[in-house]
Amino acid sequence: MEKEILEEVLPFLRQGKDILVGPGDDCAVIELDSKKLFLISADQLVGGIHFDPAISSPAQIARKLIRRNISDIAAMGGLPSFAVMTICADTSSGCLGKAWFKAFFKAIAQEASKWKLSVAGGDLSGAKNGVLSFSMTICGYVEKDRYCLRKTAKDGDAIFVTGRFGNSYFSGHHFKFAPRLLEGRFLAGEYSRAMIDVSDGLLCDLSRMASASTLGASIVPDLIPLRKGAKIENAYSDGEDYELIFAVPESLVQKLLARWPFEKTLLTKIGHFSKKLESGRIVDGSGHDLLSLYRSGYEHFLPTARK
Amino acid sequence: MEKEILEEVLPFLRQGKDILVGPGDDCAVIELDSKKLFLISADQLVGGIHFDPAISSPAQIARKLIRRNISDIAAMGGLPSFAVMTICADTSSGCLGKAWFKAFFKAIAQEASKWKLSVAGGDLSGAKNGVLSFSMTICGYVEKDRYCLRKTAKDGDAIFVTGRFGNSYFSGHHFKFAPRLLEGRFLAGEYSRAMIDVSDGLLCDLSRMASASTLGASIVPDLIPLRKGAKIENAYSDGEDYELIFAVPESLVQKLLARWPFEKTLLTKIGHFSKKLESGRIVDGSGHDLLSLYRSGYEHFLPTARK
Repeated sequence: MEKEILEEVLPFLRQGKDILVGPGDDCAVIELDSKKLFLISADQLVGGIHFDPAISSPAQIARKLIRRNISDIAAMGGLPSFAVMTICADTSSGCLGKAWFKAFFKAIAQEASKWKLSVAGGDLSGAKNGVLSFSMTICGYVEKDRYCLRKTAKDGDAIFVTGRFGNSYFSGHHFKFAPRLLEGRFLAGEYSRAMIDVSDGLLCDLSRMASASTLGASIVPDLIPLRKGAKIENAYSDGEDYELIFAVPESLVQKLLARWPFEKTLLTKIGHFSKKLESGRIVDGSGHDLLSLYRSGYEHFLPTARK
Repeated sequence: MEKEILEEVLPFLRQGKDILVGPGDDCAVIELDSKKLFLISADQLVGGIHFDPAISSPAQIARKLIRRNISDIAAMGGLPSFAVMTICADTSSGCLGKAWFKAFFKAIAQEASKWKLSVAGGDLSGAKNGVLSFSMTICGYVEKDRYCLRKTAKDGDAIFVTGRFGNSYFSGHHFKFAPRLLEGRFLAGEYSRAMIDVSDGLLCDLSRMASASTLGASIVPDLIPLRKGAKIENAYSDGEDYELIFAVPESLVQKLLARWPFEKTLLTKIGHFSKKLESGRIVDGSGHDLLSLYRSGYEHFLPTARK
């Protein structure tokens, strides 16, 4: 539903000349009268959708809010700089008192300073019916010769991923992950110019990237690193992995594998982009259409018990 | 409650060196490696709080969202440039279907282009319990020698206001107002360096400005322009006027009155700032403490029937 709505309405929005990249990537990219490009992205955490208010601590929510947003900057090859946030909370419900907000903002402050992010403003509004939701807009910078988009993968590029996939919710990964900021910076410009972060599932986000690049993708399911407790279908569709998918020209693959400096971050080549495949299509080695075989997009409703 | 929470938690947030003005003004002000300063502000519209979803059209909500945000840029003396937004909506409730969002985004697009604002990105999330809320982050620019803050009013400065006050909700002003962008640009640097926009009521926002400037304010209630249907207490406390309060050095008052080019925008001197009064205090000609006599801040809950 959300995807359908956005596809219909986004063409209405006209962009100024300074908007290098508008809606549809991890961040919008804006030209300033400056050497660097400006990045901006907005994301939200909604109680009952992205976290369960009954069992999530204020610190968990605060950290997830910041990290999710930083992941969007990472996927552009950029560095975060400052953010603003809005909170919509029914403070008449007993548990959301001053102590809750104090703990929340302490965690926001700690997490922000870890990433050198200034939380420079925002708005706090009341709400009804036990609502608790957060929206954060993050801003950052990226060099003109380094920024990475979804649409810039090329025919024949290798498809790489960081980390592991699937079972993010039940493993607690969705609260614990570290956004791949350093990895994104290392890759950007040097090894890759096409990147996306995986929030809605490997298939969904890979297909978005392929589609934006008018390419298909051929992947080897056995090569996809699984998170503990995950089956391949979880890796495909669970979402909230906050890993990077990125395109690497074949000529740079060996150099990347040799020079990857992040010992703790798994680096895996899982396939390649191809113009011989329909745009946005993802196939396995036998040519099976994976998007039609598996649920194709994470709908961001809290999972119920694992099937 | 909201104010108390923010006062306690904002000191936690450490700001980078590039953050010229952090939380607590209408916008945060950021230094870029550019000639201009960067402005950013986040604001929200929450169903049941800032509008009644049952009787508000998608176009009304869209226009209010953009205008409210532009009003924050206007109060800094700046010009808006681009924005991102997040929407949190229970699309399972019958009325929020594709048609609703299409009308909403059409109005967003129309209103944005009227103000030369690029809506460059955002996020749409599902929600439960009939929730419908919007958060917009607006960005703009202002010249280094023109930006206006709350804290820069000086002892003896005249207090001016644009427009009229009170009864915004029942008169429909809260949906119809035009943010005072041109007025703010005309004033900024030339006549004023201290401004605030009135969203929470004349007394509340004037007191914020006075308090930020470590001054008190003496006003003449009879001079305050009332909106149709408003009594003085509505002007003081209703909120959602989206007018400007600004400080003008006495030496510039006559020039301002002579050169004010906005025929349709009322310009009124209502008093002056004074260091002889306690910081943040507002008195009338007889020395009555107006904040203790009248409800001091708009709580942003939809008013019920007029008393």
